Amino acid sequence: MFDKLHEECGVFGIFRRSGETVVPETYHALYALQHRGQESCGIAVNVDGVINCHKGAGLVNEVFNREALMKMPEGKMAIGHCLYGSIGNASENIQPLLINHMKGAMALAHNGCLTNGLEIREELEKKGMIFHTSSNSEVIAYAIIQERVRCGSIEEAVRNAMKVIKGAYSLVIMSPTKLIAARDPQGIRPLCMGTMGEDVVFASESCAFNAIGATFERDIEPGEVVVVTKDGVKSYKPEVREKTGLCVFEYIYNARPDSVIDGASVHEARLQAGAFLAQEHPVEADVVIGVPDSGLDAALGYARESGIPYGIGFIKNKYIGRTFIQPTQKERQDAVRIKLNVVSATVKDKRVVMVDDSIVRGTTSLPIIKLLRDAGAKEVHMRLASPPYIRPCYFGTDVVSVENLIAANHTVEEIAKIIGVDSLGYLSVEACDKLAKGCGLSLCKGCFTGEYPVDPPKRDQTPRHEKPI
Amino acid sequence: MFDKLHEECGVFGIFRRSGETVVPETYHALYALQHRGQESCGIAVNVDGVINCHKGAGLVNEVFNREALMKMPEGKMAIGHCLYGSIGNASENIQPLLINHMKGAMALAHNGCLTNGLEIREELEKKGMIFHTSSNSEVIAYAIIQERVRCGSIEEAVRNAMKVIKGAYSLVIMSPTKLIAARDPQGIRPLCMGTMGEDVVFASESCAFNAIGATFERDIEPGEVVVVTKDGVKSYKPEVREKTGLCVFEYIYNARPDSVIDGASVHEARLQAGAFLAQEHPVEADVVIGVPDSGLDAALGYARESGIPYGIGFIKNKYIGRTFIQPTQKERQDAVRIKLNVVSATVKDKRVVMVDDSIVRGTTSLPIIKLLRDAGAKEVHMRLASPPYIRPCYFGTDVVSVENLIAANHTVEEIAKIIGVDSLGYLSVEACDKLAKGCGLSLCKGCFTGEYPVDPPKRDQTPRHEKPI
Amino acid sequence: MFDKLHEECGVFGIFRRSGETVVPETYHALYALQHRGQESCGIAVNVDGVINCHKGAGLVNEVFNREALMKMPEGKMAIGHCLYGSIGNASENIQPLLINHMKGAMALAHNGCLTNGLEIREELEKKGMIFHTSSNSEVIAYAIIQERVRCGSIEEAVRNAMKVIKGAYSLVIMSPTKLIAARDPQGIRPLCMGTMGEDVVFASESCAFNAIGATFERDIEPGEVVVVTKDGVKSYKPEVREKTGLCVFEYIYNARPDSVIDGASVHEARLQAGAFLAQEHPVEADVVIGVPDSGLDAALGYARESGIPYGIGFIKNKYIGRTFIQPTQKERQDAVRIKLNVVSATVKDKRVVMVDDSIVRGTTSLPIIKLLRDAGAKEVHMRLASPPYIRPCYFGTDVVSVENLIAANHTVEEIAKIIGVDSLGYLSVEACDKLAKGCGLSLCKGCFTGEYPVDPPKRDQTPRHEKPI
Amino acid sequence: MFDKLHEECGVFGIFRRSGETVVPETYHALYALQHRGQESCGIAVNVDGVINCHKGAGLVNEVFNREALMKMPEGKMAIGHCLYGSIGNASENIQPLLINHMKGAMALAHNGCLTNGLEIREELEKKGMIFHTSSNSEVIAYAIIQERVRCGSIEEAVRNAMKVIKGAYSLVIMSPTKLIAARDPQGIRPLCMGTMGEDVVFASESCAFNAIGATFERDIEPGEVVVVTKDGVKSYKPEVREKTGLCVFEYIYNARPDSVIDGASVHEARLQAGAFLAQEHPVEADVVIGVPDSGLDAALGYARESGIPYGIGFIKNKYIGRTFIQPTQKERQDAVRIKLNVVSATVKDKRVVMVDDSIVRGTTSLPIIKLLRDAGAKEVHMRLASPPYIRPCYFGTDVVSVENLIAANHTVEEIAKIIGVDSLGYLSVEACDKLAKGCGLSLCKGCFTGEYPVDPPKRDQTPRHEKPI
Repeated sequence: MFDKLHEECGVFGIFRRSGETVVPETYHALYALQHRGQESCGIAVNVDGVINCHKGAGLVNEVFNREALMKMPEGKMAIGHCLYGSIGNASENIQPLLINHMKGAMALAHNGCLTNGLEIREELEKKGMIFHTSSNSEVIAYAIIQERVRCGSIEEAVRNAMKVIKGAYSLVIMSPTKLIAARDPQGIRPLCMGTMGEDVVFASESCAFNAIGATFERDIEPGEVVVVTKDGVKSYKPEVREKTGLCVFEYIYNARPDSVIDGASVHEARLQAGAFLAQEHPVEADVVIGVPDSGLDAALGYARESGIPYGIGFIKNKYIGRTFIQPTQKERQDAVRIKLNVVSATVKDKRVVMVDDSIVRGTTSLPIIKLLRDAGAKEVHMRLASPPYIRPCYFGTDVVSVENLIAANHTVEEIAKIIGVDSLGYLSVEACDKLAKGCGLSLCKGCFTGEYPVDPPKRDQTPRHEKPI
Repeated sequence: MFDKLHEECGVFGIFRRSGETVVPETYHALYALQHRGQESCGIAVNVDGVINCHKGAGLVNEVFNREALMKMPEGKMAIGHCLYGSIGNASENIQPLLINHMKGAMALAHNGCLTNGLEIREELEKKGMIFHTSSNSEVIAYAIIQERVRCGSIEEAVRNAMKVIKGAYSLVIMSPTKLIAARDPQGIRPLCMGTMGEDVVFASESCAFNAIGATFERDIEPGEVVVVTKDGVKSYKPEVREKTGLCVFEYIYNARPDSVIDGASVHEARLQAGAFLAQEHPVEADVVIGVPDSGLDAALGYARESGIPYGIGFIKNKYIGRTFIQPTQKERQDAVRIKLNVVSATVKDKRVVMVDDSIVRGTTSLPIIKLLRDAGAKEVHMRLASPPYIRPCYFGTDVVSVENLIAANHTVEEIAKIIGVDSLGYLSVEACDKLAKGCGLSLCKGCFTGEYPVDPPKRDQTPRHEKPI
Repeated sequence: MFDKLHEECGVFGIFRRSGETVVPETYHALYALQHRGQESCGIAVNVDGVINCHKGAGLVNEVFNREALMKMPEGKMAIGHCLYGSIGNASENIQPLLINHMKGAMALAHNGCLTNGLEIREELEKKGMIFHTSSNSEVIAYAIIQERVRCGSIEEAVRNAMKVIKGAYSLVIMSPTKLIAARDPQGIRPLCMGTMGEDVVFASESCAFNAIGATFERDIEPGEVVVVTKDGVKSYKPEVREKTGLCVFEYIYNARPDSVIDGASVHEARLQAGAFLAQEHPVEADVVIGVPDSGLDAALGYARESGIPYGIGFIKNKYIGRTFIQPTQKERQDAVRIKLNVVSATVKDKRVVMVDDSIVRGTTSLPIIKLLRDAGAKEVHMRLASPPYIRPCYFGTDVVSVENLIAANHTVEEIAKIIGVDSLGYLSVEACDKLAKGCGLSLCKGCFTGEYPVDPPKRDQTPRHEKPI
Repeated sequence: MFDKLHEECGVFGIFRRSGETVVPETYHALYALQHRGQESCGIAVNVDGVINCHKGAGLVNEVFNREALMKMPEGKMAIGHCLYGSIGNASENIQPLLINHMKGAMALAHNGCLTNGLEIREELEKKGMIFHTSSNSEVIAYAIIQERVRCGSIEEAVRNAMKVIKGAYSLVIMSPTKLIAARDPQGIRPLCMGTMGEDVVFASESCAFNAIGATFERDIEPGEVVVVTKDGVKSYKPEVREKTGLCVFEYIYNARPDSVIDGASVHEARLQAGAFLAQEHPVEADVVIGVPDSGLDAALGYARESGIPYGIGFIKNKYIGRTFIQPTQKERQDAVRIKLNVVSATVKDKRVVMVDDSIVRGTTSLPIIKLLRDAGAKEVHMRLASPPYIRPCYFGTDVVSVENLIAANHTVEEIAKIIGVDSLGYLSVEACDKLAKGCGLSLCKGCFTGEYPVDPPKRDQTPRHEKPI
């Protein structure tokens, strides 16, 4: 409902050498990664080489209710996935993808988006191959299995396939005997490794490790493939290091603040962004508040840097879930009011700096600011912890066209007027760069600049079968 | 729960030229075919060439509850399927199968079982192809698409594929613009065609046509392919007529008595079987009763032929569904009692002829006969409207081994003793032949004789990925 | 959907002295009584004097699914109820009713309908008493508890209350230490007693005993109260025997044919009704068929008496449940077709006698007969195993007004014309009397004659709070 | 799961004179009050004087899913309730309570707990009255209706009943034509009034008004009764003003910080409590963090007063709901980890002040503090924004015995050792008094002092029927 970017997925994998269970660990890890995708989820468990998979539409605790969990078999390996699911027929595209091939079964969980997926798909279709889904993930599976028939091992097949597929992909793959993690050469989406005693885990974000009592070890490097077998862990790094670029929005919005990605704490990155914002767009005010949840850290950073007191300006209804908005409540103002309420004591008769992480389409800023005005805020100065969002993203979010991007179609002054603030300030691209540099990071800032670490797709990636005749 | 053969599927297809809807028709047709498969079901609808599919585990009225039906889009073509699902991972194997290929999308609903499915699968896997299911149906889909890339039309691809695949298959296939029905050259499973004005329908059994007010036109012939487009209906018959053999159990048990299959009324065939049974195994008795539901027709036939009065001996609880038998009720006697009750007035102090369609494993005959004894039956003479079941079936039932077949391991006298009857009589294979001849039918009686109309599979058909390492 | 009378309830009770469980027995007994009420159901279990109750809308196997059954505590006593629920706010009226009073808790399950319920309710309301439901059952509970405060025992309170309440009631009542069964002085609704070793059970129909392996002992007599405690069973019979009259429709339609009520087999009563019908309304014909399920027994009786062969004319879809009829299928012809199909082989080119139990509103006879005509029946002669239904019922069915009763508004000839039959014959009231006499029964035939065994209510019984202002 | 007090309820009522709907408003208001009770909820709608009620176990958006909302009729009046439900048989006690009496129907929603409920219940039971629930709310309903039969109006009956019932109660009552709000003479639970144009609303907390766009008007005064009819709003205030005392825990924990209760902002009260805490228990430290959600405001207050920087120390998983903790995860440490994660960047190598609202049983403090230590906190100083909880509460929480209260059984030093902190400081009772005085409030602090504004119950309030024999 809120004007947010929608990321597509969280992935997880576990290989046990000593521990007894894999299902509860995967379940709780997915629960910790739930913010990365709320539409559907699934777990594939490897029972003595036979892979069982349960998946469905809904939140982790809906799909894996008591009865479903009871029915899950146990094993020594499992992978899990949660999905936002903006693309195609949801029920078919739910992951993990479980496929059978010449050497047995393979399960695959994927976060990201290819830029040459349709080209590979069409190439394979010409050979009479069939696809069950419209997802990139099946294309990746095919690319791997095409190699598998002529390679000596699944990891070799994965490495060869990575020469063919282009774009963003963090993968966790399970064969009858191996667990494999792989990350695209640009490292666009995060992926990290942890341990629990002798056992190995992989996850999109380190917060999943905290949830199950695992220890964070390191990030998977761009282009790296890590293979876990009962004999140990082996890593294959790319021969040629390509240009890298972790999605900047992982820091701005996607990731949980308690995660550490590619060496940088998400919370600290947001504090720092807030501090830069205070330097770039200072204002005289009485209180700094953040829009929950993703604006809070930057608001605290802004407050600390500016010396203006930090306040709690909004309470977000925490019983989220699938609240059904009745027809009569459908106006956006009503919808916002149901989820967000102002703490009047904080803003009444005050000059308020309101910090949010970003504006994408700009659809909910007006009603949020109206809430502040109604609660008695004297002035409202909006500060955004990211630069103007003006270009499409090809790497797994739901912003594939610039048509609805408010900043692509309006100046900052126009936007300020549209949403009704006294002043509006965006973080500069330069501040982003400083921030990245400070953390030793290389970021993809394509959505702000149009420059991507890998070539964008050559044409619309919608498969033929999804177009009406 | 009862000792019955489990058939695998019912299929349905509709092509509208004049009518407005296809979903309610498919829904009600599947409801009429529900006896052919109760584990899962699905409907694929063609909306201007884009195919949408909804499927799930459960009965038709569970999977397609009010909410699900409301969400279904409407179109001019649809296919539907209901499945018993004895094989493999149910959720993946639920049909219709919807796949995407070079020329667009294809949906397929299949009843039957291949005898060379694993061989074709392995051949394809060697080329790096991947399978999402362990079902034969995906093998058929692949066989068709392999041809499709070099054929001018989907119907040509289907006809070519039929030269490769062996075994039992009644298919309803939907492409972006065509609806196709095809039946294996032996005609092992039923498939028929009907009309509703200008519109064409296909179904496993004619009772589906009655349910939606359609008119039965004719059976699809063994080896025939029928193609429906907006320009009309076209039929392709096999150049060489192979040996045919409709599954005898379609008459004995699978089909609904109100269906007409390959020119013969199922009800009449059962009446006739009962009459032959009376001739072959006469007995002095006071009343003839049938075991509901599939023994009733043969019981009436036995009564008419023998002159012994027909009676209503059992009431079956009609609120079937997924009744949960509590641990304390788990003994078979208790379980039988919950579903079946004797009408004492009919059997008390009487010599009773009890007619059933068949004994497969023989697990519930003893408790059923005990019910009659407890209700005061003086004598119980069991008569079976089919010969002893002694050989495996390779064409889509769940009897794949002779291990648990009571008649494969015991003489008639031993069985009579085991189940506690005063006499036991099976229909002879010769009577079956007479029955077939009378109807102009060629039947597969492999389960009684070991002679099949097509070669049995060369080896166990379980795919590699379903075997533990 | 079919034109049937709707009865309101089935009741059950169990008192264990030796056995270990009461929940599975109650569950399976309710499942056997499901035909008496499909809208809702419930079970109350007595755990050491504390009564727990679970109830809900739906069939027995829906309300008591695996999870719900698992959660039920076990005890030595339980009562159960299934309800049709034509009256008032369903969710509040679901039974058993569990109430708390001066002496502890009481659970009550009731089948029937009072004729002075509103008068008692208003009397109590004047004293400031509150009601939670609009059901008679709460009035009965109040009548008992009003006595309880001045009586030495619950059974005395029940007996006193029975002097106050008028109309139809078969009750099973549970106190912290006792299980009580009571039947109104007219014996309008059935109630019987059985045993399982040392344990005692009560049920609306004997078929519930068969389902759980209990032995039928006897019917509860009109006006009798039976009390079970750990010390044994005690019976209180009425001092003055009033006029009695078991509802004739229990034999015609409500009860299961395998039940025995007040000494008469329901199946035999229906056979006999069919035989009388053949005597009163003979016709030259080729086959006699019954409308499933309640017309089958009388059809067999007609066939035997007339010498015309009995045939199986219809197949009823056995996957009943809550099939959702889509808007486009809503015409009655379509709706009938989905549930009922003709066996053409039985009726084609034949003169058919079709026997049904009754016509109430006459809404589905026309489409059923059309099915026969469409299947090729040459003549259709309808025979009804009951007299014309012309008067309201005040004792627990849903026919409370004569407005929609076809026979109250049309002659037999007119009805024959309306529903499209070649001839129509109703059983005579005299035949009913003969039938009752043969079984030693006294029947309430008020719906045919307007003469009731107890005075009808003086005014509309709708409570005040259900009328809009 | 967390060591929190459980409050019992939220109430809401709406009377429309101009607006069109009442169901969406009540639904969204309950959603805003969900924090007051998550076990069950319900809505009663008045349709032209006939009251319909839907209620069930679960969160508001579960009980009122799309289908349930669609089925709700609309009217001009409605009341709603959400319940924590610690007492008795949940399904019977779900509110609103809908009862029928001499003058029609009455629906009642109640927050609080009587201290003489059992005495009144037993008094009524002696007159032969029956109870359906074990809740106080039914006692209140009875007390009102007992008066109603001799009073001229429902409001007079309510006022008279208030002379009989003692303890905590905030009531919203609906008759066929009136909406009534009433609050106990001590004002123990909150209740306030708002408007939407000509329409009137009542709610437990003002945040419910914000959610539906209503305007807060004023609190209902202790002992006040407000009646809304189509002719307007009328207030009855108590003749004698009794000693008052709003539950102090409404400020400490129960209420949402964005609510304003009896003139004081909850957020500001918590900020102030944090400030007093900093004065009473200063410590040298690097960062102040709050335990989400109820410790955050006081933490900010502590930080501001002490000058130590405020930090975000924990991320709480926001996909709460009914997460199923698997047996293997059942240790408390695992359970805490799933819901709460430390932001390492905030606490690593720091001296941390961790502020929480209270410790009740002390069961989760140890694992929470262990999380901080594991994340590298050098020192942990716990500060509690309330005094030691040492006495039972009789007014609607789940703390009815001192047995498990950690502070009732241990000194502060012992507790510090048990939970593993470097120092521990509770807010003093004197600070509570100062806080109350500052807000012009009179508070019930019985749980800290044993002094209550009204006499505690004379004996255990468990009804007879809930005790085993």
